[in-house]
Amino acid sequence: MHIEILSIGDELLKGVIVNTNAAFLSRALFENGFMISRQSVFSDDPLILDKELGAALSRSSILIATGGLGVTVDDHTCKIAAQLFDSEYSYNEKLALDLKKRFGDLNAIKAQAMLPKKAKLLPNKVGLAPGLVFEAENKLLILLPGVPLEMELMFTEQVLPLLRKKVHVKDKSEERQLHFCMLNEDALDQIIRESMQRFSDVEVGIYPRFGSVSLTFRSKNRGQLDEWDALISKRLGSYLFSRTSNKIEEALHSWFVKHRKRLALAESCTGGALSAELVQVPGASDYFLGGFLTYSDALKVGMLGVSQKTLKAFGAVSLETVREMCSGVFEKSDADFAVAVSGIAGPSGGTLQKPIGTVWAAIGERGKAPDIGKFHIPGPRLKVIQATVQHLLGALWRKVEHGICAFS
Amino acid sequence: MHIEILSIGDELLKGVIVNTNAAFLSRALFENGFMISRQSVFSDDPLILDKELGAALSRSSILIATGGLGVTVDDHTCKIAAQLFDSEYSYNEKLALDLKKRFGDLNAIKAQAMLPKKAKLLPNKVGLAPGLVFEAENKLLILLPGVPLEMELMFTEQVLPLLRKKVHVKDKSEERQLHFCMLNEDALDQIIRESMQRFSDVEVGIYPRFGSVSLTFRSKNRGQLDEWDALISKRLGSYLFSRTSNKIEEALHSWFVKHRKRLALAESCTGGALSAELVQVPGASDYFLGGFLTYSDALKVGMLGVSQKTLKAFGAVSLETVREMCSGVFEKSDADFAVAVSGIAGPSGGTLQKPIGTVWAAIGERGKAPDIGKFHIPGPRLKVIQATVQHLLGALWRKVEHGICAFS
Repeated sequence: MHIEILSIGDELLKGVIVNTNAAFLSRALFENGFMISRQSVFSDDPLILDKELGAALSRSSILIATGGLGVTVDDHTCKIAAQLFDSEYSYNEKLALDLKKRFGDLNAIKAQAMLPKKAKLLPNKVGLAPGLVFEAENKLLILLPGVPLEMELMFTEQVLPLLRKKVHVKDKSEERQLHFCMLNEDALDQIIRESMQRFSDVEVGIYPRFGSVSLTFRSKNRGQLDEWDALISKRLGSYLFSRTSNKIEEALHSWFVKHRKRLALAESCTGGALSAELVQVPGASDYFLGGFLTYSDALKVGMLGVSQKTLKAFGAVSLETVREMCSGVFEKSDADFAVAVSGIAGPSGGTLQKPIGTVWAAIGERGKAPDIGKFHIPGPRLKVIQATVQHLLGALWRKVEHGICAFS
Repeated sequence: MHIEILSIGDELLKGVIVNTNAAFLSRALFENGFMISRQSVFSDDPLILDKELGAALSRSSILIATGGLGVTVDDHTCKIAAQLFDSEYSYNEKLALDLKKRFGDLNAIKAQAMLPKKAKLLPNKVGLAPGLVFEAENKLLILLPGVPLEMELMFTEQVLPLLRKKVHVKDKSEERQLHFCMLNEDALDQIIRESMQRFSDVEVGIYPRFGSVSLTFRSKNRGQLDEWDALISKRLGSYLFSRTSNKIEEALHSWFVKHRKRLALAESCTGGALSAELVQVPGASDYFLGGFLTYSDALKVGMLGVSQKTLKAFGAVSLETVREMCSGVFEKSDADFAVAVSGIAGPSGGTLQKPIGTVWAAIGERGKAPDIGKFHIPGPRLKVIQATVQHLLGALWRKVEHGICAFS
């Protein structure tokens, strides 16, 4: 059974926003054993919406559409779907009260609570507009809000369980996930090619991100799956930070909480992005003390005690500076571990000796000499920042978990 | 004349990659006066490709397709298009020589130089696979490589001039963008409904994000457009931070650089996310000094001099604490402006008096009493963090640009 994904909104057709919703849904569906037949994007113009939604319903049995569920002037998805399923409306008193309680006395609430009678409601924990499920004659149309965070939560908590009940995923293979830090696609390519020849029943997926990569492998042949798993784990075990989540900050969180150690950071080029990643995990305050965001040289001196002399002699992006930043963290906080980073994110500021993408970092444990190293990340500013964050999280994890020097 | 965009490849359907190509093409086309009817994504399976490419050709006059032009096992786009246009192949000696000169004696070159006779070739300056243009009976099919950098260059340098020659862009509507901070969809909805009745020729789009919202309006009726624009600007002018970009950090960047003022932050619940947003803009070091990431109470005391007494009496999330955090920033840095924030991001830590989503913040200018206020953001942890960031950027912008109290 194939699922079709529809994304509704002129902002997509005009390229104002990138369609991350379709990618999220496709990935989540695929990882749960569902096949996706196509993604379509079209206008929120009611005439076009009516035609295209109708056409999609006649060619596919299961559709997931995002966008246009609010009550402002360009939101028509609910209305068109109600027409197609021949549904009248009724006022949902309970929803109205709940929204009022959470958001106050908004104008939008009255309109938002007028909902098609035939649709099952999917509560929205984040925003105003609930999701809607229409069902008739072997057709399932699931409408979700277009705001990514609202859509993702609703999909994961409510739609996925619903689909599992409605759709029989037959002959489901067993799937395993391996999430590696500090590796790229290229590093995995050879071992995967070797393994594929040996284990012909195993289907492999490689999903690279900046500074990390996930492998999924699935098979009905349990024996081959075990052998494959053992082989990859043996060869790359020290990079394998999780079998359940691709978020390395969660692995770090677990380690620090378990070992009752505390972490603090000194960030320059990453400008808070490293801390922001750690803090996304609930309860980060259990181990994360905070950070010294010394973007300017003056604050490197003032906050962390980096010496003017060092900055002058070696520059802000240097072994010497990150060493002093790291010492500063231990001096000014109670942290057991510290990470200090300084680099050139670009697009300006590069030199022949220190081109854009040059990053120096120190990772230390209190009372011991820190690991200090340099790496280079090619690409535009945002990539340099994001990949530096992922690289350092990986290096920190390998150091605390396996005692491996962060920059070996 | 509408243009349809096709994106071909299983990696898109599995959500392994996000469809940035469709967004790039849509935006570039739209900005040049072309209308986009739809974006579709489908599999590179030859049978599906044949069916879908055929269907697209029968419904649209101009199609731009990306992906599947190489010569590896999953590249079939060229072959299927050649069949649909009934074209034979010939060996392009000149292309083969050029590729050999640029890439060396690769195996792929021989296959890559076998091309459909009926297609016009679009040279690829970056990679191996050339683009192809098929034309017949008022149908124009343009095939571009899937690698973004190759596709974008080819589109801009070759496809856009070709389309300008082939397609007459008649009656081009003028479009305007208005980007507002600290407003939500609800706040705009009423004024938009009023205006739509008055200015029937103006087409409106509303694009909300956490803590900000963008409006686009387009019309061929210049007079109405001007009136509309004037009305909205007059009513909501102090929230209007840009007419070109939806990134408020860029507006702040411009203001601080222009006025030669410097900014530093004290972040607790946002954990670096506020700084990370500012630092995404190249050259942020021209005004942004850095931040005090005082996630723990100990660092609030140690780094910023918040008193133990205050923390004990009022708690970390309080008027008194953010006031002392803000003073601390001025004491410990040379900043002209400071933002201090402390809140409860959840999912735990909420109380009856301070529920999850409660945020206290102070925005101050050196030597003056800071604006201090409280707001509440319902929703999960990530939303609280992201919306707090956007809200504070907006409040800071209104304060520096218009002198409006940040929490009025």
